[in-house]
Amino acid sequence: MQPDLLCGNQAATVLQHFRTHRPLVHCLTNDVVQTFTANTLLALRASPAMVPDEQEAAQFAALADALLINVGTLTTPRAAGMMAAIHAANNAGKPWALDPVAVGALQLRTTFAHQACELRPAAIRGNASEIMALAGSGTGGRGVDSLQPAEQAIDAAVRLARSSGAVVAVTGEVDYVTDGERTLAVPGGDVLMTYVVGTGCALSAVVAASCALPGDRLVNVAGACRIMSCAGELAVAASRGPGSFVPAMLDALWNLNEGALA
Amino acid sequence: MQPDLLCGNQAATVLQHFRTHRPLVHCLTNDVVQTFTANTLLALRASPAMVPDEQEAAQFAALADALLINVGTLTTPRAAGMMAAIHAANNAGKPWALDPVAVGALQLRTTFAHQACELRPAAIRGNASEIMALAGSGTGGRGVDSLQPAEQAIDAAVRLARSSGAVVAVTGEVDYVTDGERTLAVPGGDVLMTYVVGTGCALSAVVAASCALPGDRLVNVAGACRIMSCAGELAVAASRGPGSFVPAMLDALWNLNEGALA
Amino acid sequence: MQPDLLCGNQAATVLQHFRTHRPLVHCLTNDVVQTFTANTLLALRASPAMVPDEQEAAQFAALADALLINVGTLTTPRAAGMMAAIHAANNAGKPWALDPVAVGALQLRTTFAHQACELRPAAIRGNASEIMALAGSGTGGRGVDSLQPAEQAIDAAVRLARSSGAVVAVTGEVDYVTDGERTLAVPGGDVLMTYVVGTGCALSAVVAASCALPGDRLVNVAGACRIMSCAGELAVAASRGPGSFVPAMLDALWNLNEGALA
Repeated sequence: MQPDLLCGNQAATVLQHFRTHRPLVHCLTNDVVQTFTANTLLALRASPAMVPDEQEAAQFAALADALLINVGTLTTPRAAGMMAAIHAANNAGKPWALDPVAVGALQLRTTFAHQACELRPAAIRGNASEIMALAGSGTGGRGVDSLQPAEQAIDAAVRLARSSGAVVAVTGEVDYVTDGERTLAVPGGDVLMTYVVGTGCALSAVVAASCALPGDRLVNVAGACRIMSCAGELAVAASRGPGSFVPAMLDALWNLNEGALA
Repeated sequence: MQPDLLCGNQAATVLQHFRTHRPLVHCLTNDVVQTFTANTLLALRASPAMVPDEQEAAQFAALADALLINVGTLTTPRAAGMMAAIHAANNAGKPWALDPVAVGALQLRTTFAHQACELRPAAIRGNASEIMALAGSGTGGRGVDSLQPAEQAIDAAVRLARSSGAVVAVTGEVDYVTDGERTLAVPGGDVLMTYVVGTGCALSAVVAASCALPGDRLVNVAGACRIMSCAGELAVAASRGPGSFVPAMLDALWNLNEGALA
Repeated sequence: MQPDLLCGNQAATVLQHFRTHRPLVHCLTNDVVQTFTANTLLALRASPAMVPDEQEAAQFAALADALLINVGTLTTPRAAGMMAAIHAANNAGKPWALDPVAVGALQLRTTFAHQACELRPAAIRGNASEIMALAGSGTGGRGVDSLQPAEQAIDAAVRLARSSGAVVAVTGEVDYVTDGERTLAVPGGDVLMTYVVGTGCALSAVVAASCALPGDRLVNVAGACRIMSCAGELAVAASRGPGSFVPAMLDALWNLNEGALA
């Protein structure tokens, strides 16, 4: 299956939808990236909220437009809150996305992520090692870093999309997004983004938000990837290193126009 | 009751007191805004510390000059630590402030915030939906966003001030600060601040700190609001979006002079 | 015992080792500084990961190259995860470093830190009040702030190094690093760094990482201190306050060259 290239016009439509619909995203994510995740959604005019308590998480997942589950700093009490939120989102017909950070070698998160995959995620976003581990064809990366290029995980992503029903995005130098039938390739981004914590996690929040937008989910998720990689390119051009990259990335998302995407 | 306008001179005096007295603020706040909250206090020459364990929180609340309670990511163990800190602060005669983030629809935090209001907070800072929900005249906002302008919550704020004994600040395009008898209006700020996570939460930390300063508490809290809105205006003028706003805001607080406030 | 001055050449070698070896650092640190800590390690080309669950922490500590234990927002469940990680690191022969934030007056962390000191830390990094409290010659600072200059803690640092077997760094206007026999003085840095949350905590992560590098551990830890103080100086020169300092510090670490250190 040869991936198609996502069109700039398609990404531009997704961007417009973010700004018009302003989805409210319930983010149950890791400790390290909460601020950057929230600010990324806000820069796109989406609305973030983090509600971790088990009972409140269930209440809030039904009110929000989408839910993000990121297992980066999973603990047992958090896993309970996440499961409650997933079930509440499913009952309310709200989409939810999974970021299987460092799934593979570490036990609690690996068990949790496999269970979560049975609960009809709308989307899954990970690096090659994570997607391969989740699809059963690898043992994970080294910490949060992938040991494989994204290309090598395309087959695993297609399998995972088919078994879970999710749109699966495997991100790397080129991102690949598949619903198990069609696969889109999304080029762009910059290696500097891998030296800034949370760029992948924030992308997963944007992927979750994109699942609440109108239109084709596959295109929405691929559009989310392209919006982030395009803003990343602009931010790299405007920065002197990974420190100034962070504010520049949020400014680029805020000021992003359809011309830059097309 | 027609609100009076806070004078620039009054805000300038509060700023001077921050820099002279450098209050040590025990911040029990949400996961998303801890870094920005700490850096905001430091930029004002105040001193932040976060001590969440129940027993340590009680020890530390007695040592610190003021305490902030923010329920944004409340969980049951954290609620226990917060309650222990509130009681210790009260016993030691130290002021404490409440930020009732998203109180209204969500159960744990709403119950907690109502209980906390009985424990003599020195100040309460929230948006219109939060203050109305806490005063019993509304069911809260949408996530962390208010559904009403601040003006509409003035009556609720006055009622809440009278029932709780706190100075109540309801913030929005204009901030209103009341002790139940007098009400001050604090204009300023910029809509861009609503696209940066934690500006409201950081303000609540500054409000808590202001309660440890000498002078009239109503004026101190209103001064805290004006210091933050003034720094926000300067930061917007110096930034290209919500990303560069964050460093610019902290720089503006650091460099703020009395002339800008007057 | 008169401290020797660390040579710029020695710090330059440590910097080179960071970039070549890129140690993977398991960071069990406080809630307030996680993002800045991760970005600091990444700017040095090291690799951070935070894995707090007790069972996973033990798994991951054996895989990582070094472990950081920072008790800034210690709670009982976290203490359990940290102890599991320390034992796993020791069993796997991986070095670990302790940051005894605010040890002295607060009970949970003080007890924990004293126990941890018995478990063969490779390095300990704290301010004068913290090191003196840990060495048994003081009752701690005021919150996270030291009440003593670093000079006054040199004797305590030497004693603590001898009793724990760790390289001990007591940081302040001048940093002193000792293995109990030799002591190195590391000048540099800027007072503005004390108005930015997490500069000390991030240094402790760099210290932990440095313990995984080849060469003399005393020189590695002192080199870590000098790399951070040098980047801090460059960042102060490039910033307008504590807000712009943060991105400038990460950019400075990223772009740091051996000439600046020498």
